[in-house]
Amino acid sequence: MTLQTPKGMRDFNPEEKILRNEIVKTLTEIFELYGYVPLETPIVERYDVLSAKFAAGEQSDVLKETFKLKDQGNRDLGLRFDLTVPLARYIAMNQGLKMPFKRFQIGEVFRDGPIKLGRYREFWQFDVDAVGVKSVLAEYELIKIALDFFKEMNFDAYIQVNNRKLVEGILIDSGVKEDQMQSVMISIDKLERIGLKEVLIEMEKNNIDGKTINNIKRFLSMDDKLEKIEKIIKNDIAKQGLKELKELFGLFGKKERKDVQFRFSLVRGFGYYTGTVFEGFLRKNEIKSSICGGGRYDNMIGNYMEEKKEIPAIGISFGLDTIADAIKTKAKKTNVKVYLIPIKTEDKTLKIIEELRKSKINSDMDMNQRNLSKNLDYANKLDIPYVLIIGNKEIKVKKYTLRDMKTGKEQMLDIKQIIKKLCSS
Amino acid sequence: MTLQTPKGMRDFNPEEKILRNEIVKTLTEIFELYGYVPLETPIVERYDVLSAKFAAGEQSDVLKETFKLKDQGNRDLGLRFDLTVPLARYIAMNQGLKMPFKRFQIGEVFRDGPIKLGRYREFWQFDVDAVGVKSVLAEYELIKIALDFFKEMNFDAYIQVNNRKLVEGILIDSGVKEDQMQSVMISIDKLERIGLKEVLIEMEKNNIDGKTINNIKRFLSMDDKLEKIEKIIKNDIAKQGLKELKELFGLFGKKERKDVQFRFSLVRGFGYYTGTVFEGFLRKNEIKSSICGGGRYDNMIGNYMEEKKEIPAIGISFGLDTIADAIKTKAKKTNVKVYLIPIKTEDKTLKIIEELRKSKINSDMDMNQRNLSKNLDYANKLDIPYVLIIGNKEIKVKKYTLRDMKTGKEQMLDIKQIIKKLCSS
Repeated sequence: MTLQTPKGMRDFNPEEKILRNEIVKTLTEIFELYGYVPLETPIVERYDVLSAKFAAGEQSDVLKETFKLKDQGNRDLGLRFDLTVPLARYIAMNQGLKMPFKRFQIGEVFRDGPIKLGRYREFWQFDVDAVGVKSVLAEYELIKIALDFFKEMNFDAYIQVNNRKLVEGILIDSGVKEDQMQSVMISIDKLERIGLKEVLIEMEKNNIDGKTINNIKRFLSMDDKLEKIEKIIKNDIAKQGLKELKELFGLFGKKERKDVQFRFSLVRGFGYYTGTVFEGFLRKNEIKSSICGGGRYDNMIGNYMEEKKEIPAIGISFGLDTIADAIKTKAKKTNVKVYLIPIKTEDKTLKIIEELRKSKINSDMDMNQRNLSKNLDYANKLDIPYVLIIGNKEIKVKKYTLRDMKTGKEQMLDIKQIIKKLCSS
Repeated sequence: MTLQTPKGMRDFNPEEKILRNEIVKTLTEIFELYGYVPLETPIVERYDVLSAKFAAGEQSDVLKETFKLKDQGNRDLGLRFDLTVPLARYIAMNQGLKMPFKRFQIGEVFRDGPIKLGRYREFWQFDVDAVGVKSVLAEYELIKIALDFFKEMNFDAYIQVNNRKLVEGILIDSGVKEDQMQSVMISIDKLERIGLKEVLIEMEKNNIDGKTINNIKRFLSMDDKLEKIEKIIKNDIAKQGLKELKELFGLFGKKERKDVQFRFSLVRGFGYYTGTVFEGFLRKNEIKSSICGGGRYDNMIGNYMEEKKEIPAIGISFGLDTIADAIKTKAKKTNVKVYLIPIKTEDKTLKIIEELRKSKINSDMDMNQRNLSKNLDYANKLDIPYVLIIGNKEIKVKKYTLRDMKTGKEQMLDIKQIIKKLCSS
């Protein structure tokens, strides 16, 4: 037997998991503050649900990277590759749902792709989506959620925003044909990572003609100044996109506006986006990948229904790995506050630890009759802030030795004093 | 495309998921109070890890019911069927871990078995295990955790306890041969569900001879009186089990002892248990299945290591489905406290909702310009306790109409009064 996890999948040790739980908690509280409700769908979906062509769009890579399996009834199943397709399936199956349906979902998703720096075969997504709202108020709300989250985490971060209609209109006028649209968008999306020159080379390789490339280059060189673009666009789709963007930006106060920036090259990969798209990034940080991203997709959900109809929707997804990386210096090995060391006083120690736990103090004790120095070493290795030493001498006077593991300072305190000290520190 | 979830797998709608999240939160807080740390392992494991013969023991059913899959590298993988095997694999891979390792893990597990009443192919487990503790203090701690949980949930519930050594010793002396041991134990475990007569018939069918069955019957008829059993056992293994049981029961106070009962027929299905086993049940409730269960397994983890050694361990697993069933009357459709209805006052309403959220009040608002009666209907359907109506008249006087959706009572209040009322209600 090979003792390892599957390739591209990871264990998260307690230190990492405590950190991840804190991020989940912070996000969940914000989502609920904004009126979103939790939903849970299975890890496994029917393969035909996952493989619907309007789901991942042109990105057939996602489907190639879908883990397939069968059940005993020989049904074709797959591990979900995102949380958006299951949401669409859920909405289509529950057409009596009250709209808008504002839900969040947190869980593992799977891609059986190549393992690269920071790319895994199992990873977590945190999705918030507002289904059944066409108004730009939904865009505003999701971006606000991201800004609230940045504040809560003390992140110096900002959101880049664009609109697919604006880009599509401009590309049409630039000479991009319908069947080239997705490929050109994917090239543009790489601007930040590979630079203008490489983007133009990639378009050339994809048989985009020189004049068209030159037209696109003009927009890519406008330093993301919406006013410059506004002056020269004629296309109606682009104008609609521009209108939506200006309406959205207008909702933010001056101070927030600094953290919400227009970015022409931000278009995102999925084929299903129909309007606003956005991504969040850290400033002055070694982590360059986005920490969240999303956009409006007004057509995808309706496609799952027998009677096709437009179900407007917009969502944002937070990437747990990137966020955890950004705060990994804050990791704790345990949430235990005090470690009790009985010296042949197990019975009494059980009573004392019960008191501490009744006061909601996370407490642990030695159950292996180890000696004092081994126990101190254990508490020290786990970064437990306090130990409480309980010998027969201590039991007699009903005062116990509380040792601050950081300073080494020891105090003899009774149970009330101990509780008071631990609750306030 | 068939719009459905895979057979035996379920969506949990917001109402169900809010309830499940509350159970998770309650359990997590208790686990941390007792010094346990969270661990996360992948949903997918290598198939050879799952299929190790010392894992699920004689229960080869579990392996037959394991969902198999492959990755692009043609590696054999499977969906985990419990959280204990991944724990054992993790311990074996991380031999530098400080012992005891007290961890909890929460997550989905999978069994591709027949769908019956209350049996699903995807379900959640909440496991707490103390690894590296041989002392009965660990047994005591896990049972205390269950009792604390019952109290926190207002459950009238109790724990049945037994010891595999006691049963094994008695069965040996009754004439059960080694290769019959597992099958006899599985029959005895069914006593509660199928009754004494059927248990004896099942043993007969499994070729246990009449005399042996009669010997076993004697113990099954002792009304779970430990004193009766004590008087007649001679076998040393049984005596050791008895000693462990008495030591454990001795740790509980008189009041708790009422909720911790000896039960001779409780032996549990898995082959890997080596000592104490226990299960928790509700009293006077239509739910008859156990809400938690576990036991000591001192040999399993060490078997995963190249240099075999004994790694004592004990764990308890809580079943989310049963617990959720038991409290389903407490379900809420949303955690939203107030729903804001702007009457052509979106911009001002955004400011007001921001104030509410800053005060940590879960708030939602209409983003679809619906009329008042549609909005009231929406809030009513979702059981949102309050709505706040914000028209231009209200904006002028800076007082808004707060409607209690239960009583229908309306009050004109300023923002401070609203926050005060919502925070205190």
